[in-house]
Amino acid sequence: MHPALHVVYRVRSDARSIADRARAIAVEQSVEMPVSAIVDARVLADIVGRVEGIDELDSGLFEVRIALAAETAGDDPGQLINMLFGNSSLHDDVVLHDVDLPPGLVATFAGPRHGLDGLRRRVGAGRRALTCSALKPQGLPASELAELAARFARGGVDYIKDDHGLADQGYARFAARAQAVAAALHRIEDRTGRTVRYVPSVSGDLDDLRRQVAVAIDAGIDAVLIAPMIAGLSNVWRLVRENPDVAFIAHPTMAGAARIAPHLLFGKLFRLVGADGLVFPNHGGRFGYSPETCRLIARTALGEWHGLRQSVPVPAGGMTRDRVSEMLDFYGADVMLLIGGALLSAGDGLVEATAAFVAEVKGHAYG
Amino acid sequence: MHPALHVVYRVRSDARSIADRARAIAVEQSVEMPVSAIVDARVLADIVGRVEGIDELDSGLFEVRIALAAETAGDDPGQLINMLFGNSSLHDDVVLHDVDLPPGLVATFAGPRHGLDGLRRRVGAGRRALTCSALKPQGLPASELAELAARFARGGVDYIKDDHGLADQGYARFAARAQAVAAALHRIEDRTGRTVRYVPSVSGDLDDLRRQVAVAIDAGIDAVLIAPMIAGLSNVWRLVRENPDVAFIAHPTMAGAARIAPHLLFGKLFRLVGADGLVFPNHGGRFGYSPETCRLIARTALGEWHGLRQSVPVPAGGMTRDRVSEMLDFYGADVMLLIGGALLSAGDGLVEATAAFVAEVKGHAYG
Repeated sequence: MHPALHVVYRVRSDARSIADRARAIAVEQSVEMPVSAIVDARVLADIVGRVEGIDELDSGLFEVRIALAAETAGDDPGQLINMLFGNSSLHDDVVLHDVDLPPGLVATFAGPRHGLDGLRRRVGAGRRALTCSALKPQGLPASELAELAARFARGGVDYIKDDHGLADQGYARFAARAQAVAAALHRIEDRTGRTVRYVPSVSGDLDDLRRQVAVAIDAGIDAVLIAPMIAGLSNVWRLVRENPDVAFIAHPTMAGAARIAPHLLFGKLFRLVGADGLVFPNHGGRFGYSPETCRLIARTALGEWHGLRQSVPVPAGGMTRDRVSEMLDFYGADVMLLIGGALLSAGDGLVEATAAFVAEVKGHAYG
Repeated sequence: MHPALHVVYRVRSDARSIADRARAIAVEQSVEMPVSAIVDARVLADIVGRVEGIDELDSGLFEVRIALAAETAGDDPGQLINMLFGNSSLHDDVVLHDVDLPPGLVATFAGPRHGLDGLRRRVGAGRRALTCSALKPQGLPASELAELAARFARGGVDYIKDDHGLADQGYARFAARAQAVAAALHRIEDRTGRTVRYVPSVSGDLDDLRRQVAVAIDAGIDAVLIAPMIAGLSNVWRLVRENPDVAFIAHPTMAGAARIAPHLLFGKLFRLVGADGLVFPNHGGRFGYSPETCRLIARTALGEWHGLRQSVPVPAGGMTRDRVSEMLDFYGADVMLLIGGALLSAGDGLVEATAAFVAEVKGHAYG
């Protein structure tokens, strides 16, 4: 079997059953039929998944390493996730924990086109953390979202993203919103010389996504937010290839909590198909990720992996200004800090609150 | 708030915290920001999610009913699932259990174009259970898959689907496979007068999916297998609208085990975007669904719901011939029985094993 996907699963089992369970996963994720009924020698030699190792991590919890034939994934990221975890996602004793891919497959997908360095360059930032805020609530008309964006921009934030709930709804159509916000930000840039980037959320089927990206480009926008688990990894990869000048920030909506390890899903799979930035729930906010999980997501996104560009980690989800210093100590400078609701809560003081957030990030002395 | 999505979540919580937790879900799935910071009266009145009821189902387990504004979902099924469960999928204390949608939204999506009746008509079946088998293992060349299909057809099965692992891999390209299998089945039909349908698996981004559906139609095929959680609900709906003569069978790969109730995901959401058939893991096979879950999936798929056509339940996953009678007693005649590996295991006796399976289904006396 060469080349192979080397997949790591974590499986709850008793010690007596784990060898059988591991073999069953290897079959489920490859030929999905009784191996005894396979007569084709090539399929038996090259296609049937193979258990490479089993280790007990804890009482009743095992790490199972399985090799799957890379040719079963072809060169489609949807088919890749299908082979890594498709049917096993229906078994509640198994978590997809990690994968190593053959260099040729990684080179095909090619990862971020811009990554951390590109996102810094766009806003003229040196080796410092980037700042970001979010337009919400949904339900506001495009003109009010544009006004909000202008205030964030006056506060000096680097990136302004849509809330992931903003789609193409009747009350703020994508095109109207993109044009209004982009125009408002260009006025601020002209007046102040500051650089600020709008990251609108694109949604719908591939046709809708393409249309929205084209509208964004026409409005002078060069980055978009996308939800890979809703759009489909294959469609994200298609958009990335078709729009090499656009940066893509991945949103974790519908990514589930518990069945694909977040460092793998975000830090490897989303990065693989071209996510330049990765929004994920920071520890201690509204979501339940642990500090260890968050650290591992960031390390994976930034770590050396077959020469891919780094995806910038964007820890978020109920972050506040009083956590800036702690977060920068935790993540270092290779991060984008995203504070949304807490800045919006400043009401009339939004510009000042944003400016204070930005100043704290820029002035932080890394420990 | 009118019209509304009436959403039911099941939440693990202690009694003291559940009211706050329910409000937090209502906010997370709508405006995703502190409600106190919202000044727009229309957003407060029409867009912020609203807790409609909380019931304790069991100690520490609550049913929470929340109304979300239907306009936040627009008319895109990806955005619908985003609003129903997107960020909450990242919280491991909550399961998306059920939803009722406004009639106008259901009419927009429109559900199956063929459904149970259409799938029966295609193979000249009266009010009886349909039969299905599966082409595998992946790794076989198109010619061998076609030969296998011919043997299933000689056994008299109604539908022959691809294993969901069959994509567009180098060893059996979609086009070569579709053409070879369709040609083999047409020869059997010409010789025997029997009707049999091939259901090839389509995969990739929307462009790939379209191309594959077009190739299938050109080869005289009128049904395809698709994985909505990998392709994206929006793209499935697009294909359904573009190909009104093609039946779509949904595969549950990547649908997860535990966080969206299967009767909702398969029986309502997949049906909503047009799945004529629904493959799901039957109880007592390789997967862990209970009889109650399976019964609820089937009832939901077949039940009256805003006038949509019925999706045919396709319980599968390690089914064997000795379960046919029990399954027909359990599901009744409104079902498609899918036996794959167990028929393939018959080796040289595949045609006879298939014929025996078909005969038992056709001859079953419903209790």
